[in-house]
Amino acid sequence: MQLFIGNQNYSSWSLRAWLIFTQFDLEVDIKKLKLFSDEFYQQLSHVTPTAKVPALVDGSITVWDSLAILEYINEAYLDNKAWPNALSERAHARAIAAEMHSGFNDVRNEMPMNCRATRQVKLSLGAQKDIARIDAIWSQQMQLHPNEWLFGQWSIADAMYAPIALRMQTYGIELSTPAQIYQQKVLNSKAVQLWLAQASLETDTVMEDEAGESLVD
Amino acid sequence: MQLFIGNQNYSSWSLRAWLIFTQFDLEVDIKKLKLFSDEFYQQLSHVTPTAKVPALVDGSITVWDSLAILEYINEAYLDNKAWPNALSERAHARAIAAEMHSGFNDVRNEMPMNCRATRQVKLSLGAQKDIARIDAIWSQQMQLHPNEWLFGQWSIADAMYAPIALRMQTYGIELSTPAQIYQQKVLNSKAVQLWLAQASLETDTVMEDEAGESLVD
Ligand SMILES: N[C@@H](CCC(=O)N[C@@H](CS)C(=O)NCC(=O)O)C(=O)O
Ligand SMILES: N[C@@H](CCC(=O)N[C@@H](CS)C(=O)NCC(=O)O)C(=O)O
Repeated sequence: MQLFIGNQNYSSWSLRAWLIFTQFDLEVDIKKLKLFSDEFYQQLSHVTPTAKVPALVDGSITVWDSLAILEYINEAYLDNKAWPNALSERAHARAIAAEMHSGFNDVRNEMPMNCRATRQVKLSLGAQKDIARIDAIWSQQMQLHPNEWLFGQWSIADAMYAPIALRMQTYGIELSTPAQIYQQKVLNSKAVQLWLAQASLETDTVMEDEAGESLVD
Repeated sequence: MQLFIGNQNYSSWSLRAWLIFTQFDLEVDIKKLKLFSDEFYQQLSHVTPTAKVPALVDGSITVWDSLAILEYINEAYLDNKAWPNALSERAHARAIAAEMHSGFNDVRNEMPMNCRATRQVKLSLGAQKDIARIDAIWSQQMQLHPNEWLFGQWSIADAMYAPIALRMQTYGIELSTPAQIYQQKVLNSKAVQLWLAQASLETDTVMEDEAGESLVD
């Protein structure tokens, strides 16, 4: 299997897909491409019609889009264990995963992922509302599963929110205590630590993803 | 089961979720709310944390977001037959459904759904690219399944693209012949015809969803 991803410092959608392989120790050949470069578009043109990462090639099967890749790996290699087992929990997990997949545009625009930076930004009202909603999702799940993943066992919902835990750190966002506990769990997890270590070795700067006032650089 | 939807003339995400119930003749109690009205936010505040439609209540289970609702109904009531049966086809169907769920922002912004109107708009380059990509998806699947649904049998992928078939008509977009054949199949389907009949009885105007220059009103 080959997983095409972007710069690990910047590419939040890549991280979401990459996590499931790392979390479950699945063998995969990572092809990293520099976001927005000529090579990026040239290589992807042979792989996906969307010219976006992540994209997965598994033999004759090609899957693009983070959520579709996560659903595919869950079905094809994990016997469905990357979603909660109970129908009601699975429905809930899919709802919050879908919220992330299709929404939170203000947070995504105003706080682009940038693993190695520390930044200050003045957030719009929309972004503040997004953050409050994310805090509520995390806190509510921590009430049900203290110190655990969002649904107890690690699930695709955790993959979807992992880049947000990083962004909250980069931009110094204050969270409620339960949400902060979840954030720290994500940041301290082996998989995210490995991603960060790999990101820290990168030297490319992608101007499209630089925002805010730098505190340390 | 209760499905909360918005005005049928305007609410494209509602249509996506509503279709699976109609297509498979599932019993559901439709609660229609006027988009952006006080009552809309008040009623939804008891149902979904996102204050958006569609939202589904099934006994003690609440599911919001079109895609999560479609996945839930597929698992809970349809024995998974709303996705293609073969793993590879299912992966492909999920990829294009996810593309719709998270993308095509220019088409969504510049060509809001408006079932009863006929409009003219000057489209941005981004919207034109979106349309070309949608045309390519539809044409490619028509090559594989001439005159059928995108994956032969009706699937969640068809639900995701149905509002686009309506918009292409509202805004008079020219499509390639195979894409047009698919569009007509969607527009002539019993379920979409029923939606349109119900939409045509509505009299509310939602200014947030009115765009472009009206040709007939
Ligand atoms: N909905 C897609 C979004 C993918 C996406 O936007 N990826 C960005 C990098 S994080 C990308 O490839 N951008 C390149 C471009 O837009 O040209 C997913 O969930 O995978
Ligand atoms: N990602 C959501 C989008 C839902 C959505 O944006 N619904 C619109 C109506 S079509 C809405 O409820 N808007 C009200 C608001 O944003 O306040 C889904 O797939 O269900």
